[in-house]
Amino acid sequence: MKEKVVSAFRPGSTTEGEEAFALMKKLFPICRSITGNGVRETLKIIKEKIPVEVHEVPSGTQVFDWTVPKEWNIKDAFVKDQNGNKIVDFKKLNLHVLNYSVPIKKTVSLKELKEHLHTMPEHPEWVPYLTSYYKENWGFCISYNEFEKLREGNYEVFIDSKLENGSLTYGELYIKGQVEDEILFSSYTCHPSMCDDNLTGVVVLVMLAKKLLESKHKYSYRFLFIPETIGAITWLSKNEDKVKNITAGVIAMNLGNKGNPTYKKSRQGNALIDKAVEKMLVDSGSPHTIIDFTPSYGSDERQFCSPGFNLPVGALMRSPAWDFPEYHTSADNPDFVSVSSLDKSFDMYARLIFLLENNETYASLNPKCEPQLGKRGLYGAIGARKSGYFNEIALLWVLNMCDGEHPLLDIAIHSKLDFEQIKNAADALVEKGLLKKA
Amino acid sequence: MKEKVVSAFRPGSTTEGEEAFALMKKLFPICRSITGNGVRETLKIIKEKIPVEVHEVPSGTQVFDWTVPKEWNIKDAFVKDQNGNKIVDFKKLNLHVLNYSVPIKKTVSLKELKEHLHTMPEHPEWVPYLTSYYKENWGFCISYNEFEKLREGNYEVFIDSKLENGSLTYGELYIKGQVEDEILFSSYTCHPSMCDDNLTGVVVLVMLAKKLLESKHKYSYRFLFIPETIGAITWLSKNEDKVKNITAGVIAMNLGNKGNPTYKKSRQGNALIDKAVEKMLVDSGSPHTIIDFTPSYGSDERQFCSPGFNLPVGALMRSPAWDFPEYHTSADNPDFVSVSSLDKSFDMYARLIFLLENNETYASLNPKCEPQLGKRGLYGAIGARKSGYFNEIALLWVLNMCDGEHPLLDIAIHSKLDFEQIKNAADALVEKGLLKKA
Amino acid sequence: MKEKVVSAFRPGSTTEGEEAFALMKKLFPICRSITGNGVRETLKIIKEKIPVEVHEVPSGTQVFDWTVPKEWNIKDAFVKDQNGNKIVDFKKLNLHVLNYSVPIKKTVSLKELKEHLHTMPEHPEWVPYLTSYYKENWGFCISYNEFEKLREGNYEVFIDSKLENGSLTYGELYIKGQVEDEILFSSYTCHPSMCDDNLTGVVVLVMLAKKLLESKHKYSYRFLFIPETIGAITWLSKNEDKVKNITAGVIAMNLGNKGNPTYKKSRQGNALIDKAVEKMLVDSGSPHTIIDFTPSYGSDERQFCSPGFNLPVGALMRSPAWDFPEYHTSADNPDFVSVSSLDKSFDMYARLIFLLENNETYASLNPKCEPQLGKRGLYGAIGARKSGYFNEIALLWVLNMCDGEHPLLDIAIHSKLDFEQIKNAADALVEKGLLKKA
Repeated sequence: MKEKVVSAFRPGSTTEGEEAFALMKKLFPICRSITGNGVRETLKIIKEKIPVEVHEVPSGTQVFDWTVPKEWNIKDAFVKDQNGNKIVDFKKLNLHVLNYSVPIKKTVSLKELKEHLHTMPEHPEWVPYLTSYYKENWGFCISYNEFEKLREGNYEVFIDSKLENGSLTYGELYIKGQVEDEILFSSYTCHPSMCDDNLTGVVVLVMLAKKLLESKHKYSYRFLFIPETIGAITWLSKNEDKVKNITAGVIAMNLGNKGNPTYKKSRQGNALIDKAVEKMLVDSGSPHTIIDFTPSYGSDERQFCSPGFNLPVGALMRSPAWDFPEYHTSADNPDFVSVSSLDKSFDMYARLIFLLENNETYASLNPKCEPQLGKRGLYGAIGARKSGYFNEIALLWVLNMCDGEHPLLDIAIHSKLDFEQIKNAADALVEKGLLKKA
Repeated sequence: MKEKVVSAFRPGSTTEGEEAFALMKKLFPICRSITGNGVRETLKIIKEKIPVEVHEVPSGTQVFDWTVPKEWNIKDAFVKDQNGNKIVDFKKLNLHVLNYSVPIKKTVSLKELKEHLHTMPEHPEWVPYLTSYYKENWGFCISYNEFEKLREGNYEVFIDSKLENGSLTYGELYIKGQVEDEILFSSYTCHPSMCDDNLTGVVVLVMLAKKLLESKHKYSYRFLFIPETIGAITWLSKNEDKVKNITAGVIAMNLGNKGNPTYKKSRQGNALIDKAVEKMLVDSGSPHTIIDFTPSYGSDERQFCSPGFNLPVGALMRSPAWDFPEYHTSADNPDFVSVSSLDKSFDMYARLIFLLENNETYASLNPKCEPQLGKRGLYGAIGARKSGYFNEIALLWVLNMCDGEHPLLDIAIHSKLDFEQIKNAADALVEKGLLKKA
Repeated sequence: MKEKVVSAFRPGSTTEGEEAFALMKKLFPICRSITGNGVRETLKIIKEKIPVEVHEVPSGTQVFDWTVPKEWNIKDAFVKDQNGNKIVDFKKLNLHVLNYSVPIKKTVSLKELKEHLHTMPEHPEWVPYLTSYYKENWGFCISYNEFEKLREGNYEVFIDSKLENGSLTYGELYIKGQVEDEILFSSYTCHPSMCDDNLTGVVVLVMLAKKLLESKHKYSYRFLFIPETIGAITWLSKNEDKVKNITAGVIAMNLGNKGNPTYKKSRQGNALIDKAVEKMLVDSGSPHTIIDFTPSYGSDERQFCSPGFNLPVGALMRSPAWDFPEYHTSADNPDFVSVSSLDKSFDMYARLIFLLENNETYASLNPKCEPQLGKRGLYGAIGARKSGYFNEIALLWVLNMCDGEHPLLDIAIHSKLDFEQIKNAADALVEKGLLKKA
């Protein structure tokens, strides 16, 4: 039997870090891109956990101002020196190939080779991750240390890739609730072998969806596993009729690094999701950072918050990508992220669902003067309830502010008490016949 | 002949501390509770100063969620040791009896006695004040030092009290003004021999009412002398038709201690009373504290600000009760309060009335460009007026902001000038025909 | 051919300090007052630069609460000691005469003379500037050092002035634009030989008008050269039908001293002009001060912001008069001001016009998701444009906020990018067909 979301997502009630970490490691080796078999393989593994639906959108489909590109697939790639030694090998690290490289098989001079090599001199041991989605090109990414070792001579370059008409692949899971209003969670599946950015976002959402499937909940939930930018544009283009139901949304990203939580607000700036995430972070007791919406860096909230949609969608992460040098390099590997951070990130998303699901608006049935709490056993009842806690102060705040106009989130923010305390106080007052849903 | 409130309450014009202190000392010995003869005796003494009307509400009357309790009266109480020595004596200090104790006459062991003794170990010389209004019980409050002296043996406990059907007694004084809109002042009369909490609130209101009775004023004024909580609930329950007239209200409490003024805002938070008290405190030059409304501590503003009423009622005190350890103990005696603090507290309430009474809205009769002040003798007139003061800056602010939309309080707040200066400037401009009431 | 205001007033594009300084020096020796030939002569010189229209309003004309005064003219004035030495000589410094002095020719004792002498002991070498417009009087202003040298004896005082019916003279220049909405610039021409206060305001406006006459612009512009207070009152009284067109206005004053820019806001406080000047100052990179409107010091913004008009008119200066001791003394001479300050002040006004003229509201033609900038050559285009600059961040902000509701000024303020960058980004997007005027 399904457990109510109220208890399933109660703060501190679950730990999913181990399972999330294991899933991340399984997905790590796959060479993903914005299209191609890497995405399909990723979604197939996700499907072992949750019944995600796989969509294919043909190359050439017009999606607003963009066109779904040709599908890219790659089997092998390397650079050999004149002794036949593979000095760069895609099979060892898929970041070595400039993502979306066209096929090539050619012998080139060192000079020509260098025009197609990308390095990161400020971190000489790391291999950078680079792409060329919308301009046909080929290239290799190597560490600066390897680059420095190259000597004059001829090199064999070989990229066994295909760039052909095919389709863009994405996953979607819609979990129906009691109301049509829905909460959107979206993450991107287009990055090859890197962890924090953004397998961590993907696996936290998988675990969250799994938990929601086992729970009763009011809202409907929609999970998207899409390629960044073009995927969000494609989904929005094909689902314009659905966006009216989006009550709140979050882009999940960078959830495994050791930094503290960071929330980038929606364009609206004071939407329910913005207030809910901020209060959740305050209640969690963790230091955290709230940043205003900006269209100039971030992820798919940029599309959901474009002026023609202006949806209440923010981005909830740990340290943002632009704050750590490992971003988009080979250093963003399983060692860079931790089970503990995934645990904390899952808890953060679970708390958010707990808050959103329980953010009801009540009206006091005894609005004139305080009711006599003593005769109902509600005074001195601190710590006496099994499934939660509240105190007299929370009771009095709920009674005073439940005038049919203040949802519990507003009461918790105004009173500076934990949302959970306020929710428990409201439950106790409903039980005693002093409160009803507005 | 009555003096206008304008002059009677002009800041700094009166000192009432001595008379207030004498009245407080006269009321001090009486054993009050939320019902009973102690309250009646208190109101009788107040009646020597002001024509307060005494109301009796029968025990058992339903008042919203509450029921008026049985009436409690007490003649004597003591504890005797086996040598017949009175070791606790109600006649020496009425705080010794747990307020609302049922009658008892019994010989008990030390063990049983101790179950009914209340002390305050952190202040071993003080007797705490405790009550048991809504749960029948008996007990004694003693100093921890006395408690420590108790030896094994039998003790005679005797409480000559009655808990019977009777009534709840409160006092009310309505002073009619030129308009029906009224200012509410309320204080509580249920505490036995303690001073700061809250005889000081009572006597400051008595002096204020006395002064208002001698003055002409625009607003009607209502003074309540009621038992805390149950009294406010009872009054609201029986006077629901009157609350629509309440333009502003203040609970008077803790007005004799040496702390600086503290104002607890109404639930509305930005009501006239909230702005008026804050500006009054700023103008007074005294350091002060403004705190937001909270339903979780305070006094009867909690009832007046319950969501079904949401009246513009705050609480104006010196150091709040929760900030001083003498609160609800025998240490809150006449030595704890001072004439000087009562003087300052009265002045604060007088300034508030001055401000509320004079907070008119005017419209300039010369709204286009500045009028020529020089030809009217208004320039260089600093300090030249008998009954007040203003300066050119105040004149210019009043002329600029009197557009029929800004009451004088708003102009004083915006210009950062004293309210009195702004009021005097408006008077001078009215006199010269440059301003009229809007 | 006229150059577009867009390019003519682009920040940093012009320097007018030298020409402005030369004009100021030419106007400096003239003895001006609120009426009389000094004003006429001043306007005649201004006419050599711009086609200002001269208005004459007869003495005795009623203007709101005021009356246009008699016209004052002066030919000569001196004080001679008994040896016939001119110890005070109007011809050497016109500040020596109390402005608006009635004619006098008389021999007086030292005692009587001293009743008509004005000095400034805190700056013993300076001659103060004083007036007596609305009370008939005569007097001389001298340095305190000279005052100290006076010895007993008789003195000949002579003022060859006339105070007769005549008129009040002011200059006005209306430059028609594409729309009737107009920008008002006003400065005062009533001060005799002083520079910062306020020949600098006058000459900066003259240069600005000259530049506007050579440019194409959207708004209409009105320049006023009027006597302070009575001039603003007179103009408003005779032009009530025109004020509805005033979209924004600025009083130009104290523009030559070495202080940083200061802007005194309009009474509205958040009008377009207030936001525009503040953003202009932020973008300019100069330290600056913004002060709230007050009716109690300043200049003609007091009249334009009287409650019956409440126009969006502020005052833009460098250090305000009340901050420097040279204010209204002989020390406010050409040495006190600098070409460099005039240059910076002109630039500040030019930037303001650039901002106001280009503050259009656009709507994105691709509001759903971001458009693909790469395919239009807009990505990586940093620094590639000839007549301006923008960057990808500015492009994204413009695309995100151009929803037909946010003018470019709001976008620049919100994004914290330079207005010019935002404007250039909008131009580039219009050119690519991604944006249109709303």
